[in-house]
Amino acid sequence: MSLQHFRIVMSNTSHPGNIGAAARAMKTMGIHQLYLVQPKYFPAPEATAMASNADDVLQNAIVCNTLEEALTGCVLTVGLSARKRELSHPLVDVREAAIRAGSIANSGQSVALVFGNEMSGLSNRELDLCQLLAMIPTDATFSSLNVAAAVQVMCYELRMATLGSTLPQIETPALASTEEMESFYQHLEETLLHIGFLNPQAPRRLMTRMRRIYARTGLEKEELDMLRGILKLTQNPLQKYPLK
Amino acid sequence: MSLQHFRIVMSNTSHPGNIGAAARAMKTMGIHQLYLVQPKYFPAPEATAMASNADDVLQNAIVCNTLEEALTGCVLTVGLSARKRELSHPLVDVREAAIRAGSIANSGQSVALVFGNEMSGLSNRELDLCQLLAMIPTDATFSSLNVAAAVQVMCYELRMATLGSTLPQIETPALASTEEMESFYQHLEETLLHIGFLNPQAPRRLMTRMRRIYARTGLEKEELDMLRGILKLTQNPLQKYPLK
Repeated sequence: MSLQHFRIVMSNTSHPGNIGAAARAMKTMGIHQLYLVQPKYFPAPEATAMASNADDVLQNAIVCNTLEEALTGCVLTVGLSARKRELSHPLVDVREAAIRAGSIANSGQSVALVFGNEMSGLSNRELDLCQLLAMIPTDATFSSLNVAAAVQVMCYELRMATLGSTLPQIETPALASTEEMESFYQHLEETLLHIGFLNPQAPRRLMTRMRRIYARTGLEKEELDMLRGILKLTQNPLQKYPLK
Repeated sequence: MSLQHFRIVMSNTSHPGNIGAAARAMKTMGIHQLYLVQPKYFPAPEATAMASNADDVLQNAIVCNTLEEALTGCVLTVGLSARKRELSHPLVDVREAAIRAGSIANSGQSVALVFGNEMSGLSNRELDLCQLLAMIPTDATFSSLNVAAAVQVMCYELRMATLGSTLPQIETPALASTEEMESFYQHLEETLLHIGFLNPQAPRRLMTRMRRIYARTGLEKEELDMLRGILKLTQNPLQKYPLK
């Protein structure tokens, strides 16, 4: 599976809690390779605490002295950027970056996603090693995403680009057939006439609106049985309980 | 702008740090309405610390006793779920949920996105108040997203669905025209013949490959001038500096 070809690189991270939260974010998305370039504190108890049950990602993290070292073997390096840059690297949003990264990962080649320091972002030296800049679109007046939150969004987009939406399968229950629905509408119309809700002189529009309601909801067989039970009793109430 | 019609509802949140991190996540995406249903600790210093510069979102947060109260005025309630549910609410991924929520917000009506407790998620009572369940696709063996990370991904998708990708505008530099590129290829071919790299008997394929390289990179006018300067000196070196 191509997720194994993605590498998250965190450079000069100041807060070990962010490294832990990033590890957890990665693991939820099925991404496991974490490289740390000169982290300020690592290993650290805050990192382990924030990683929750993703401390295997921390234990397997590779600590490097230079960004070059962390990029060894990668064919594409994507820098995550929060700022408008002067010297023009190609700039894309994270969705587009994930699509490009995904097509490389699908070919079995490795891609690095590089996240800079919390305060200063990626240095010019680090940018020189990137081929592409990716941005998370943000509010113009408040663009300071937490670095672990940025890792979460990037890894989510990498997963979506690579595997698509993999929701757990839910069994579709037995749905009411067209004939069953038509017979229900008939029953409903009779009942509404019976209780005096429908005017037999002009019944049409109300039934159309009723049809729309049930068409949108997509009734299951069991639900239809339930509704027909209600109609039956509406026509012939048991009147076991007096109205209050 | 329709982002104002989204409301983030955090129900029974245990850790105030998560409320703060969620506030920051919301604000980066341009979403400001936060409702808290019976938060365990709030206000709290950890919330303020994690909110970074988004404490205005915390200060304006509305604390409620019940989820019903927090949903007042909303026409769609989306529950964020990490588990496969028995009783079938419609289940979609967050991208699809954001598209549906976005079309309602665009019509000026309010949508609530509800996040349950960190450990237990949404209760059955809370689920009864939702019309739609949304899921963030996760790794099958490790699906425990941090709740603030989930708020970040949801708000990111709401922003993408509503505003699309709003990257800061970067001025496109002046690019080389077709004629300029053709004249460059001519110059390049001459030069490669001159230095003996191209075999005049079979020059074609190499030039095609050279063309591909420069076609992909999309040269700016200034960059082209630079390359032509190099070709010129390759043909007639100044030879100011002896080779080592």
